[in-house]
Amino acid sequence: MTHYPLNTAGTRYDITGVGNAIVDVLARVDDAFLAEHSMPKGGMSLIDADRAEALYAALGQCTECSGGSVANTIAALASLGARTAYMGRVHDDALGAIFRHDMRGSGVTFDVAPATAGLPTARCLICITPDAERTMNTFLGACTEFAPEDVDESVVAASAVLYLEGYLWDQPAAKEGIRKAMRAAKAAGRTTAFTLSDTFCVERHREDFRLLLKGDIDILFANEHEARALALQENLQEASIWIAAQVPLLVVTRGGEGADVWLNGHCTHIAAEPVQHVVDLTGAGDLFAAGFLYGLTQGWNLTEAMHMGHRCAGEIIQQVGARALQPLNRLVA
Amino acid sequence: MTHYPLNTAGTRYDITGVGNAIVDVLARVDDAFLAEHSMPKGGMSLIDADRAEALYAALGQCTECSGGSVANTIAALASLGARTAYMGRVHDDALGAIFRHDMRGSGVTFDVAPATAGLPTARCLICITPDAERTMNTFLGACTEFAPEDVDESVVAASAVLYLEGYLWDQPAAKEGIRKAMRAAKAAGRTTAFTLSDTFCVERHREDFRLLLKGDIDILFANEHEARALALQENLQEASIWIAAQVPLLVVTRGGEGADVWLNGHCTHIAAEPVQHVVDLTGAGDLFAAGFLYGLTQGWNLTEAMHMGHRCAGEIIQQVGARALQPLNRLVA
Repeated sequence: MTHYPLNTAGTRYDITGVGNAIVDVLARVDDAFLAEHSMPKGGMSLIDADRAEALYAALGQCTECSGGSVANTIAALASLGARTAYMGRVHDDALGAIFRHDMRGSGVTFDVAPATAGLPTARCLICITPDAERTMNTFLGACTEFAPEDVDESVVAASAVLYLEGYLWDQPAAKEGIRKAMRAAKAAGRTTAFTLSDTFCVERHREDFRLLLKGDIDILFANEHEARALALQENLQEASIWIAAQVPLLVVTRGGEGADVWLNGHCTHIAAEPVQHVVDLTGAGDLFAAGFLYGLTQGWNLTEAMHMGHRCAGEIIQQVGARALQPLNRLVA
Repeated sequence: MTHYPLNTAGTRYDITGVGNAIVDVLARVDDAFLAEHSMPKGGMSLIDADRAEALYAALGQCTECSGGSVANTIAALASLGARTAYMGRVHDDALGAIFRHDMRGSGVTFDVAPATAGLPTARCLICITPDAERTMNTFLGACTEFAPEDVDESVVAASAVLYLEGYLWDQPAAKEGIRKAMRAAKAAGRTTAFTLSDTFCVERHREDFRLLLKGDIDILFANEHEARALALQENLQEASIWIAAQVPLLVVTRGGEGADVWLNGHCTHIAAEPVQHVVDLTGAGDLFAAGFLYGLTQGWNLTEAMHMGHRCAGEIIQQVGARALQPLNRLVA
C-alpha cells in the first residue's frame, strides 16, 4: 500500500503532542457500582472537584499512573524510539510531579513549567469492570487553564507531526492554544493529526470538529462509535465514507475487529492480531495511534504502520493502565 | 494440626497493625540499572531525600500504589473480611491522601490525622527486574516522625492481634511507639505478632530483635534469609530450631518451596500451591502474613491458616504491586 507523504525536512521532533495532562487513578469495580453512581458505561464524564472527591472516596484500592490520551500516545512513541515533545498544563503538586517525571523519564521533551497558581493537577478516575471495559470520570483542574502561551510554535514547526485530542475542545483557552499550534504547523508545511477522543466529546463539539475536517486536519483517528457520532450515521461504512471524503487520511479503529485506513477515500481493512489475555482496555486507542504514527514517521507504508498500531494496542491491553510497563522498542521488527 | 489460642474476648478488631505508611513507586528496570546505581539486588535500602530525588529522576515510567509492609497486610486482611485498624504517619500531601484513601477505601479504621508540619509522606522506589525480583529504596519522610502519641492504646487493647514490622526499629520515636503498643497488648492479654521485614533490617537490629523474642512476641514471621540472619546460622533448620525455642509460634516462609510453621518447637512444612504466572514478587510475604493471620482470627487450625497464607501470596504475585486489585474475600473457601 502507498506511503503517506510526511514533511520531515529540518525536523527536530517526529511528533509533538498537545493534550490534557492527567494522572489516572485506576480502580476495579463491578457493574452495580457504575449504576449506583450513574455512570454511563464506557464513557468519559467531566466532573467537578466535589464529585471527584465523592467518587474517589467511594472507590476502594486505587493505583495512580500518568495518563491523558495524547500524553499516553506520546510516551509510547518515545518508548518506541521516536523523537517527541509534549505540551500540557500541570500544577506544581505531587500529581503534577508524577506526570512530569513519567513524560521526561520516557524521553519526551516537556518544557511547560508547572503552574504555581490556579487549580490542582487533573485526575481521571478510571473504573475497570470485570469485562475489562473502562468508565472514566475526569476532573480537569489545571488543564482548564492551559492557554495559548503554553504553546511553543518553534517546537510545533520543527515537528513532522502535530498530534491533538478532541478533549481539548472542552476548554475555551485550550481551544485557542490548539488553533495557534495548528496555524504554526500549517505555516511550516507540517502534518496535523487529530483524535476524536470519545463519543460524548464528539456530541459536545460535533460542529467544531466537522469544521476542522475542512482543511485543518490531515489525519483523523476515530473509533467506530466516534465515527458514527461525527457523521450522524448509524452505518459505519456510510459514516466512514462521509468522513473520508473530507480528510486525506482517516483511521477507524474497531476493537477486536481490527481497523480501517482510508486514504483519499479508498479503504483498506487491517485485522487485529490475536491477543493472549486481555486485562484492561485502557489506552488501546492511544497506543494504536502511537504505533501508527511511529510507522508513518519512519517512512513505512500504511499497511505496515497499521500493523504497528495493532501491535502496540495489543501490548497495552495485556496490562493494567495506558502506559507501557516494558519498553516498546522491542515491538519494532 | 492444633489450633493456636487467640484471646478474642471483647474485641472490636481482629488485627491492628502499626507500621511505616509508605506509597510505593514501581518501575521496571534491568540488572544493569541496579549495578549502575549500586543497589544490592533484593534488598531494601534507606535513602535520604537527595538520593530519592536522583533515583526517581533516573527511573522511566512509574506507577504509584500504596504500600508499607504491615499496611499491605492490613489492607489484605480487610479485603478478606477481617476487622482491622492501622496506625502510621503520613503528611497532609497528595501521597498521604492516596495512602489514607486506599486504607479507608479497603475498610480499615485509620484515624491517625495527617501531619501538617514536618516531612512529606514516605515513598519507596521499587525496581522490578525481569526475574520479578524487587529491589527497594525507601525515603522514610513522615514515618520518621511517628511517635508514641500516634498509638491509641484502647484500639490495641480491643484487637485480638497486634501486628508490627521490624522496619519500625529504624526510628527511635517509632520504637517507643511500638513499645507502648506492645505494653497495651500484653496488659489486655492480646497476641503480638512481628515480622522481621528484611535481612538488612535484621542486621541493623539483631540484638533488639533477639531481646523481643524473650516474652514480647507471640508470633514471629521470617523468611529463610531473615531467620538465618537473626540466628546467625547458615543452616535454615538450625536457625529455625534456635528461634522456635524462644517464641511460641514461628512462621518461616521459603518462597516457592512453601513455608514452615513451628509451634512450641515442633515443625510442620506446608508446600506452596502452584502459581500460573509470576508477575512480581512484591508483597508475597505481606500477603502470606495476611492469609495466615486471617485464618488464626477465624479460629482455623494452623494448617488451614498456612494454606490461606499461600493462597493470598499466590494471588498477589500474579499482579504488579502489593495491594490486591481484586477483592480477596473470594479466596475464603
